[in-house]
Amino acid sequence: MGSTFGKLLKISTFGESHGPALGVVVDGLPAGINIDTSFIQEEMDRRKPGQSKITTQRKEADGFEILSGVFEGQSTGAPIGIVIRNKDQKSKDYSHIEEKFRPSHADYTYEAKYGIRDHRGGGRSSARETAARVAAGALAKLFLQHFGVTIQAYVSQVGSLKLEKEYQDLNLELTETNIVRCPDPAMADKMIELIDGVRKDRDTIGGVVQCVIKGTPVGLGEPVFDRLHAELGKAMLGINAVKGFEYGSGFEGVTMRGSEHNDAFYKEGATIKTKTNYSGGIQGGISNGEDIYFKVAFKPVATIMKDQLSVDKKGNTVNVSGKGRHDPCVVPRAVPIVEAMAALVLADNLLINRTKKL
Amino acid sequence: MGSTFGKLLKISTFGESHGPALGVVVDGLPAGINIDTSFIQEEMDRRKPGQSKITTQRKEADGFEILSGVFEGQSTGAPIGIVIRNKDQKSKDYSHIEEKFRPSHADYTYEAKYGIRDHRGGGRSSARETAARVAAGALAKLFLQHFGVTIQAYVSQVGSLKLEKEYQDLNLELTETNIVRCPDPAMADKMIELIDGVRKDRDTIGGVVQCVIKGTPVGLGEPVFDRLHAELGKAMLGINAVKGFEYGSGFEGVTMRGSEHNDAFYKEGATIKTKTNYSGGIQGGISNGEDIYFKVAFKPVATIMKDQLSVDKKGNTVNVSGKGRHDPCVVPRAVPIVEAMAALVLADNLLINRTKKL
Amino acid sequence: MGSTFGKLLKISTFGESHGPALGVVVDGLPAGINIDTSFIQEEMDRRKPGQSKITTQRKEADGFEILSGVFEGQSTGAPIGIVIRNKDQKSKDYSHIEEKFRPSHADYTYEAKYGIRDHRGGGRSSARETAARVAAGALAKLFLQHFGVTIQAYVSQVGSLKLEKEYQDLNLELTETNIVRCPDPAMADKMIELIDGVRKDRDTIGGVVQCVIKGTPVGLGEPVFDRLHAELGKAMLGINAVKGFEYGSGFEGVTMRGSEHNDAFYKEGATIKTKTNYSGGIQGGISNGEDIYFKVAFKPVATIMKDQLSVDKKGNTVNVSGKGRHDPCVVPRAVPIVEAMAALVLADNLLINRTKKL
Amino acid sequence: MGSTFGKLLKISTFGESHGPALGVVVDGLPAGINIDTSFIQEEMDRRKPGQSKITTQRKEADGFEILSGVFEGQSTGAPIGIVIRNKDQKSKDYSHIEEKFRPSHADYTYEAKYGIRDHRGGGRSSARETAARVAAGALAKLFLQHFGVTIQAYVSQVGSLKLEKEYQDLNLELTETNIVRCPDPAMADKMIELIDGVRKDRDTIGGVVQCVIKGTPVGLGEPVFDRLHAELGKAMLGINAVKGFEYGSGFEGVTMRGSEHNDAFYKEGATIKTKTNYSGGIQGGISNGEDIYFKVAFKPVATIMKDQLSVDKKGNTVNVSGKGRHDPCVVPRAVPIVEAMAALVLADNLLINRTKKL
Repeated sequence: MGSTFGKLLKISTFGESHGPALGVVVDGLPAGINIDTSFIQEEMDRRKPGQSKITTQRKEADGFEILSGVFEGQSTGAPIGIVIRNKDQKSKDYSHIEEKFRPSHADYTYEAKYGIRDHRGGGRSSARETAARVAAGALAKLFLQHFGVTIQAYVSQVGSLKLEKEYQDLNLELTETNIVRCPDPAMADKMIELIDGVRKDRDTIGGVVQCVIKGTPVGLGEPVFDRLHAELGKAMLGINAVKGFEYGSGFEGVTMRGSEHNDAFYKEGATIKTKTNYSGGIQGGISNGEDIYFKVAFKPVATIMKDQLSVDKKGNTVNVSGKGRHDPCVVPRAVPIVEAMAALVLADNLLINRTKKL
Repeated sequence: MGSTFGKLLKISTFGESHGPALGVVVDGLPAGINIDTSFIQEEMDRRKPGQSKITTQRKEADGFEILSGVFEGQSTGAPIGIVIRNKDQKSKDYSHIEEKFRPSHADYTYEAKYGIRDHRGGGRSSARETAARVAAGALAKLFLQHFGVTIQAYVSQVGSLKLEKEYQDLNLELTETNIVRCPDPAMADKMIELIDGVRKDRDTIGGVVQCVIKGTPVGLGEPVFDRLHAELGKAMLGINAVKGFEYGSGFEGVTMRGSEHNDAFYKEGATIKTKTNYSGGIQGGISNGEDIYFKVAFKPVATIMKDQLSVDKKGNTVNVSGKGRHDPCVVPRAVPIVEAMAALVLADNLLINRTKKL
Repeated sequence: MGSTFGKLLKISTFGESHGPALGVVVDGLPAGINIDTSFIQEEMDRRKPGQSKITTQRKEADGFEILSGVFEGQSTGAPIGIVIRNKDQKSKDYSHIEEKFRPSHADYTYEAKYGIRDHRGGGRSSARETAARVAAGALAKLFLQHFGVTIQAYVSQVGSLKLEKEYQDLNLELTETNIVRCPDPAMADKMIELIDGVRKDRDTIGGVVQCVIKGTPVGLGEPVFDRLHAELGKAMLGINAVKGFEYGSGFEGVTMRGSEHNDAFYKEGATIKTKTNYSGGIQGGISNGEDIYFKVAFKPVATIMKDQLSVDKKGNTVNVSGKGRHDPCVVPRAVPIVEAMAALVLADNLLINRTKKL
Repeated sequence: MGSTFGKLLKISTFGESHGPALGVVVDGLPAGINIDTSFIQEEMDRRKPGQSKITTQRKEADGFEILSGVFEGQSTGAPIGIVIRNKDQKSKDYSHIEEKFRPSHADYTYEAKYGIRDHRGGGRSSARETAARVAAGALAKLFLQHFGVTIQAYVSQVGSLKLEKEYQDLNLELTETNIVRCPDPAMADKMIELIDGVRKDRDTIGGVVQCVIKGTPVGLGEPVFDRLHAELGKAMLGINAVKGFEYGSGFEGVTMRGSEHNDAFYKEGATIKTKTNYSGGIQGGISNGEDIYFKVAFKPVATIMKDQLSVDKKGNTVNVSGKGRHDPCVVPRAVPIVEAMAALVLADNLLINRTKKL
C-alpha cells in the first residue's frame, strides 16, 4: 500500500535512491497508443538532476528500459514495466547519517514505522522515486494527446518572489526557455539569482508550481470522495516536499462573496461556458470544460549544507551536516513531476468516465 | 466509484438530498468497540441545519438508525449500516431549477456526465450527504479514543476576518461555546456579525477551518502516494465547497529557508520530539508524534438569494434566483465534517500500520 | 473488507439475520437504466424462504425499499441504497446456541476472529445476507438486458441424483415450473421426493447448480489474475455452502487429450465461432462469444434437526440440536443467487472492457 | 486491472513471453524478513522449463534480480521489484501464427479485446508469466515460515490416473523425489509413462494438483465475498489452463447428508478441533485451524504438435501446426505455482486479520 496510484490506469512504483534500479509498472493504459520513447526521455530529462547550476549537480542520466506491454511500437493493453538503473550513486556520502535522524527528513519516521531503514540517499523516501512517475506520466500524456488535453506547469513563486500575473497573461511557451521554468523572463532571472544566492549560503528555499490543464472534456471526475480536484490534490500532496494544494480561487476565494465568486454560464455556439472561472474548471468535483488550474506549495528542501543539531537512533544529541550534491530549490525540477501526476489523474478519470452512462 | 472512502476502514455513502433517505455502510471497524449512540447523535447535531441564526433555517432532525454490525452495544466487526431519513424536504422549492443550471453548482456537470439529474436540492451533489460522513466519523472517533488520538477543528477565518493566533495560543475548549465555532470569543462575535450581514445581503461568504490532531502514534501513513497528509488532503478536498488544503507550514512555508524550516530533533525522556513543528507532525508522509495541523479553505456557498444570469438545458439564457433556506457561510457546520473525515483517515491508517512489521 | 464485491460496479452488503434490516449499496451502475421494481421483487421472491414444502418454512416477505440513486424511475449514476427489513425473526430459537459452537457453522471461527458474535440466526454469516445480493443482481440483469446477455441457472444435481443431459439438451424454460428448479420434469420429481425424504429424516443434502450465460460479447474479462472465470469462481465460492466451482470441461476435462479438448475455430457469416466449447466460452480468461457455462457445488446445509456433539465457548462438551425452520437442501433457493452473482460479474466486466482500447 | 493480486500484500506482474523481461512488484511485505535468495531460486527452479523429459525442453534459466525493497538481506517494507530476463526465446517459432488464431489459446480473444496482440509465444497470455508469481510466492512463504504455516502441493491425477489415497495417507516428503511430483512412487511411474506416451503422440493431457496447507492460525479469511476459500479459488482459477477448484469435500460433498458431513467439534488440550474435516479447514469463509486442502483441475495444454483447422484474422480457414518446445502435461510444473498463489493468499489474509479486533 502506498506505492500504487490510480484506479483504471494504475501505476506501481518501486526502488530506492541507492539500490540497483527503480521503476514502475503501468497497468491499464489502453491498447493502440504509439509509444514515443524519445518523448518519454525528454520528459525524464526535464526532471533529471544536474541539468543546470540551480539544481543538484548529481549526474543521473535517467535512461530507461521498457520491459513489456509494447509491441511494434504500440501499447498492447498489457502492463508496461519500466526500469531506470541507478548509476551515479555515491552511497558513502551517506555513511555519516546511518545512525542519525536528519531534521525534517523521513529518517526517524521510517525507522519507527518499519524498524529498519535504507539510509542511503533517503532510500525509498528519496525524491529519486519521482523519476518513475515522470516516465509513467509521459505515457499518460501520450494517451491524453488523442483527446486534446494539454498540461502545462510552471514555477510561479520562489521564496517571496511571486509572479503576480495570472496564467492567462503569461506566454507558457516560454516556460522551458529558462532553467527555473518560469514563463516570465524577467522574473525568471530574479528567481535564478535568488536560488543561486541561497545555494551559496549552503541553504535551501521553497516555491510554488502552478499547473494549467486545457481541453479537458466535460464530465471527468467522480462525485463525493473522488472529485477531480480531490484526486489532483492527493496526487500533488503525494509529491515529496509538498505542503499545500489549492485550485481555482483557492485560499483567496474564502474572502469573496458568493455573488462575486459564482461563475455565470453562457452559451457560445454549441458550448456552455462560464464568464469567470473561480471554479477552476471543476464543479461538484466534475470538469466543466473550462481550464483547470491549481497551485502546489513546496517547502524548502530539508538537506542543507549547514550543521544542525539532531539525535541518533539511541537518542544521543548529534551534529548533522549535509554532504553530497543537493537541490537548493526543488521547484524547477518539480514542474515535470506535477505535470506527470496531473496527466495520470486526467487519463484515469477519462477512462472511468466511459462507464457512467448506459 | 467515488462514493467509497478508505482502505481498511471503508465507508460507502448513498443518498440524495430529497430522496427517502441517505446513509452509509462502515466496513472494517474492528470488533469490540462500545458504540455510544448518543455520542453519534451529538456529532450529527453539530452538523445539522437550523442550529443557529447563521446557518440554514431548514429543520432536519438528522436522527439515524443503525441497521447492522452492532450487537449488545458493541461493534461485531461486521459492516455497520446506518440510515438517516430525509424529512423536512421541500422539493417544490427546486422545481424552478429543474431545467436550469445554477452558477457554480454541480447541475451542469452532473447533467453532462450522466445525462440525467435529480435536481431536487442538488441531488447527490448536496452537502446533505455529509451527514452520513459525520455518523461514520463518529464511529472512527470512538475507535481512536482507545489510542488517545483527539481531533479538534475550529473556524479560523471568515471572509477577511482571520484569526492571527496559532492553535497553541487558543483555548480550543471554547470552540463549541459560540455558534460560529471560533475559539476566540471576540473574533467569534465579529465573524457572527459578518455572516449575519452577508445573510441580510442575500449573499454568502467563504472561510477557513483549521484542524488539530493530537496524540497520533508515530508511524501512521504510507510512503510515496498515500502519505498521511495526502490522504488527509484528499479527504478534505472531497468535502463540498473546499478549494484548498495546506498542512504544517503550508503555502507560507515556501518563503522560508531550509535552515529556518527544518524541525530539530531532541529527546525528552524516552520520546524523540521536535523543537519546531513546521512539518505539521508528518515527515516523509508518516506521523512523527507531533501535533498534526492543517487548514481547509471553503469558498462562498453558491446558492445566493440574488438573481443571476445562467443558461438552461437548451442553452437559453435564463434568470436563476435562489429559493429555500440556505447557509450564508458553510464553515460553522463544516467543523464536524472536517473532524469526521480526519478521524476516518487516522483510524484507517492506524489499522494499516498494524501490518508493516514482521 | 469482505463485504464489498466488484470493481466498477461495486456492491457493499450489510446486515445480520436477526438485526433490524439488511441491505446493499450498489455503486457504479450506469445512469439511464429503467429500474423495474417488480422485476427486482420477482427475483427476490425466487430466493425467499417459505416458497415451497422443500424449503425452509420461515416466512420472510423480503420486501425492499430503494433509498437512493433512482429518479423518476431511472438510475442516475449515484449509488443505489436498498434496505430489506427483517420481519419474521424468532431470535429465541437461537438462545440455546448462544454459548455453543454448531458443527460446520461459522460460530467458532467468528468468535475466534472477532472475540464477539451475534449468535442469532448465524448473524452476519447467515445466508439471509444473499437477499441483498439478489436485489443487486437484479439491477445488474436490468443493465445486461441492454446488451442481450441472459443468465439462466438451474439445479442439475441433488445428492446422487444427477442430470445427465447437458444444458443444450434441456428446455431451460421449464426451470421455474417446479419447486426444485430442475428443467427436466421427471428428474425434478425425483429430486423433490429425495429432498422431502431427507427433510423428514430431519437431515439435509447437497446439490449442484449449473449456470449458462448466453450472448456475452467477445472480450470480457481481464488477463492474468482477473480472468472472467476467476471472477465468476470467486463470486460463486463466496456464496454460503459452496465447496466447488468448475467451468467448461471442468474436472472431467483433465482426462482428455489436447487434440480432443481444443475447440476448433470456424467462421459463420461475420462471426468467428468454435465447433466444440470445452473452453466454456472463455479463452485466456476472456469471453469468446460462445456460451459460458459452469457448475457450483453446494454442501448439505449444516443445520440439521438431529442431536450432535460439540463444544461450547468454555470448551465443554455439549449437545447441539437444531431448532427453528431450515432448508433441507439449499440448491432450489440458490439458483437466483448464482444468477445474481453471475450478473454482477458480467456487468462489471462489461464496464471494465470499455476502457481497454484507445 | 487484471495484473494485480492481493489486498495488503499486493503483487503486480508484467511481461510477455518474448519481450526483454518479465517481473513483479511485491508491495506490502512486512519489514524485517530475511530474504533468502537461494530459496527463491529453488522455488523458481521447480517451475522452470527443461527440468525433465516430461516438461517442455525450452531452456530458461529463470535467473532473477531483486531491484529494490531489500537492504542488508532484509525486507524494508518498501516494494520489492524483481526482474526475470527472457533468454532462450525463439520468436521465429511463432511467425507462422502471427495471423492465425490457435484453437483454445487466447489469440482470438486478445486480438478482439485489444485490437493488437503480441503473438510471440502467446505474449502476455503465456504461462511464462507465472515465473513472476513463483518469485513473489517465495517471498510470501518466507513470511509465513514465521507463523508455522506450510504449503505443500502435489500431482494427484494425470489423465485418468488418479491417486485414490488422501493426503493424510501419503508421504508428502516424496513429492519432489520424482519428475511428475506425485508423492506415491508407484503412481508417479505410471503418470510419467502416460505423459511420455502422450508426448510421443504429439498430444497433451490434463491433470489435477492437490494442495495442503498446515498450521494456519484460526481466524484467517473475511466473511461474505472474500472468504478464504473464495480467495484461494480465485487465485487458482487465475492460473493458466485451470478449469476447476474444489476444497474440503468439494463436488463429492454434494452427495452427502448433513449428519455425515458436519465436522463435530471437540477439545484437545487447549485447542478446539474437529473430528472430521469435510469443511477443509474453513468455516464461514474463515480458517478454523484444521488442514486446508483443495484440488485444482488443469486442462490439457492447448499447444499440440498435430495439425488443426482454424481461422486467421481475416476469417480464412487455415491449418495450424504446433512448433517449438511445449509441455505435454502442465501439472508437474504447476505444483510450485499452486503453492505460490496459495502462499500469497494466506500471507495477505494473515496481515488483514491483524486489523479485526480493537
